[in-house]
Amino acid sequence: MTAPLLILNAGSSSLKFALYRPSAGADPAPLARGQFAGIGRALAFSAKSADGHPLPSPDAATLAAIRNHADALLLLPDWLATNGLGQDLAGAGHRVVHGGTRFAAPERITPEILDALSALEPLAPHHQPHNVAAIRALMAQHPALPQVACFDTAFHAFMPATARSLGLPAAYEAKGMRRYGFHGLSYEYVTGRLRQLLGGTLPKRLVIAHLGNGASMAAVLDGKGHATTMGFSTLDGIVMGTRIGSLDPGALLHLIREEKMDLKALEDLLYNKSGLLGLSGFSADMKTLLESPEPRAAAAIEQYCYAIVRHTGSLAAALGGLDALVFTGGVGENAAPIRARVCRDLAWLGIELDEAANARGGPLLTRTKARTAAYTVPTDEELVIARHTARLLEL
Amino acid sequence: MTAPLLILNAGSSSLKFALYRPSAGADPAPLARGQFAGIGRALAFSAKSADGHPLPSPDAATLAAIRNHADALLLLPDWLATNGLGQDLAGAGHRVVHGGTRFAAPERITPEILDALSALEPLAPHHQPHNVAAIRALMAQHPALPQVACFDTAFHAFMPATARSLGLPAAYEAKGMRRYGFHGLSYEYVTGRLRQLLGGTLPKRLVIAHLGNGASMAAVLDGKGHATTMGFSTLDGIVMGTRIGSLDPGALLHLIREEKMDLKALEDLLYNKSGLLGLSGFSADMKTLLESPEPRAAAAIEQYCYAIVRHTGSLAAALGGLDALVFTGGVGENAAPIRARVCRDLAWLGIELDEAANARGGPLLTRTKARTAAYTVPTDEELVIARHTARLLEL
Repeated sequence: MTAPLLILNAGSSSLKFALYRPSAGADPAPLARGQFAGIGRALAFSAKSADGHPLPSPDAATLAAIRNHADALLLLPDWLATNGLGQDLAGAGHRVVHGGTRFAAPERITPEILDALSALEPLAPHHQPHNVAAIRALMAQHPALPQVACFDTAFHAFMPATARSLGLPAAYEAKGMRRYGFHGLSYEYVTGRLRQLLGGTLPKRLVIAHLGNGASMAAVLDGKGHATTMGFSTLDGIVMGTRIGSLDPGALLHLIREEKMDLKALEDLLYNKSGLLGLSGFSADMKTLLESPEPRAAAAIEQYCYAIVRHTGSLAAALGGLDALVFTGGVGENAAPIRARVCRDLAWLGIELDEAANARGGPLLTRTKARTAAYTVPTDEELVIARHTARLLEL
Repeated sequence: MTAPLLILNAGSSSLKFALYRPSAGADPAPLARGQFAGIGRALAFSAKSADGHPLPSPDAATLAAIRNHADALLLLPDWLATNGLGQDLAGAGHRVVHGGTRFAAPERITPEILDALSALEPLAPHHQPHNVAAIRALMAQHPALPQVACFDTAFHAFMPATARSLGLPAAYEAKGMRRYGFHGLSYEYVTGRLRQLLGGTLPKRLVIAHLGNGASMAAVLDGKGHATTMGFSTLDGIVMGTRIGSLDPGALLHLIREEKMDLKALEDLLYNKSGLLGLSGFSADMKTLLESPEPRAAAAIEQYCYAIVRHTGSLAAALGGLDALVFTGGVGENAAPIRARVCRDLAWLGIELDEAANARGGPLLTRTKARTAAYTVPTDEELVIARHTARLLEL
């Protein structure tokens, strides 16, 4: 039996992991997944097996000794062995947020590649350094372990030039200032899964809304990324949990001029204190907001749905029309009232919501005769990474 | 015969003026219009009568003595008398870019109102100070002359809360950081003129593209501003002559962090060196670009049309569909290839371009059976100001 693959998704204070058993000619089989949260603050560990049973945590003293991502990684082999998941690993696959202009497909990591990924850190300062640190720590601990990088930007790498441009003078584009797009591993999974659900064909003009804590939308033409709301950074586009989404650049200049905000204050406001949290004044969590009787919760939800509706119109224009809309990500998969609200406001595009199907969670959310279909497709970014890792390592 | 109204539109280095004769029960009649350009640099004067004949300029020595807007205003009464336009004025009407949250309709100017307009300068630092300076200079020179302010923001004052929000926390909205919208005098004129052209009825769901040197688009529902691409500032939205339009806020943060740009450098880049000029590398002028064989001119035009198409989709989503699209402003009125390109890419919305009608300049640009109509309506902001001024002064 082939040793498992370790799939890693390293965030600023979290390390998500999953184990998959490669299987020739089939999808890698999930074994377990879990995460270290609150790294550097109050560490919390959770994990469960593929069938959903909780798996035991390392003891409190061991957890208390974890100060960073490298410490957490050091712990994993023992934890895997303890839980009967094998002492050996066949390889590791990483979610890497930024592939720059060079990486339009998953890549087996070499020291040269790792340097190239590190050089991209200024393009994604809140994410890329953590991705790179995890690869580097694993490389130090297990020099012989083959590692693969899978990029959130890759899905969008072949967007038309108009969809890529930020509108800045050419000199800035030459320095890498262009629209890249993110959440590409999710879009790749959802596109493949929808094709499977529809018996092998994909709607020609598709918009996918990845509504997680970070959130973006993509226009997909004939299965390929054609435009997206997140652009150069992970800040642009629709309203997110704590991120602002699109913002009039003149408003940002005003915050500098009149509010005397510096870079740090601006980043804190726009990344951490805006979005649903800033609009509601009390929560970034959609479930909490949907259950709240507060008028500001309702107003934040209104603004969130409005942004999705407006951006759907914009992406449909990029596609020359719309054949299907897909919801994914935590909110997209679980918040039926959000899907209902968005679909109602998009009735003009030919979306006719089937309320009962929406309440059930789809996958088809619209009446069978609707001119434009809507679906819910739960995403699985780890599986996409496991697939690419198994393929590149020929497992 | 009633003395004429002086209509003023003061920019950073220009002062545009027009003369209208009020007429009871009818539109004010145009007498002449002209402008001082290059104030503070190389001054140029031009003017013509209502029937299009050039009117003589003040002599070179007189022009050479003009150092600011107040000097130019001092010159006007003599120039009017010399050209048989009368020594007296019945009143003055001003285009004022920003009405803030207080002014949702034209207003007769008092010293208190003038202070309130001046207090709005931080919200439109590139425009409002010049508007205020012209009012103040005229008040000093002709204390008894009644003056009226007409606001570019007023048309949009009743947009729904979702269309107004910038997505920032409530504390910022309380400080006036919200989407205001501009070019409202143009939207007001075009809406009225289209209603007239269509025999008294207006399409329910209308998008107007005001494509001038500055440019914006507005969604108009039942004749009222419902959403707009220019928001808090005059920088947001579609690609303009030298302004960037929408920009990923993370790109702006990157310019601060990695390019070490300060406020002044950012303003210069985003207001003066982006848009068509930045994209083409050589011109902000659509006519020049359309006639150029340069691939970068073609690419800049592509990007310009793409932005209009994407924003039309977004505005149509705000309206719940689209019944008509109207082009106005210098580019919208004169650049048939731009209209053709935009309409072709919006065919999915039911727009069927009539090539011959478009070449003729409309007003109807689409086949009579098209599900969605497109029009060209030349704008006339001065006439709107003259109408409001005559009405408020009961002339």
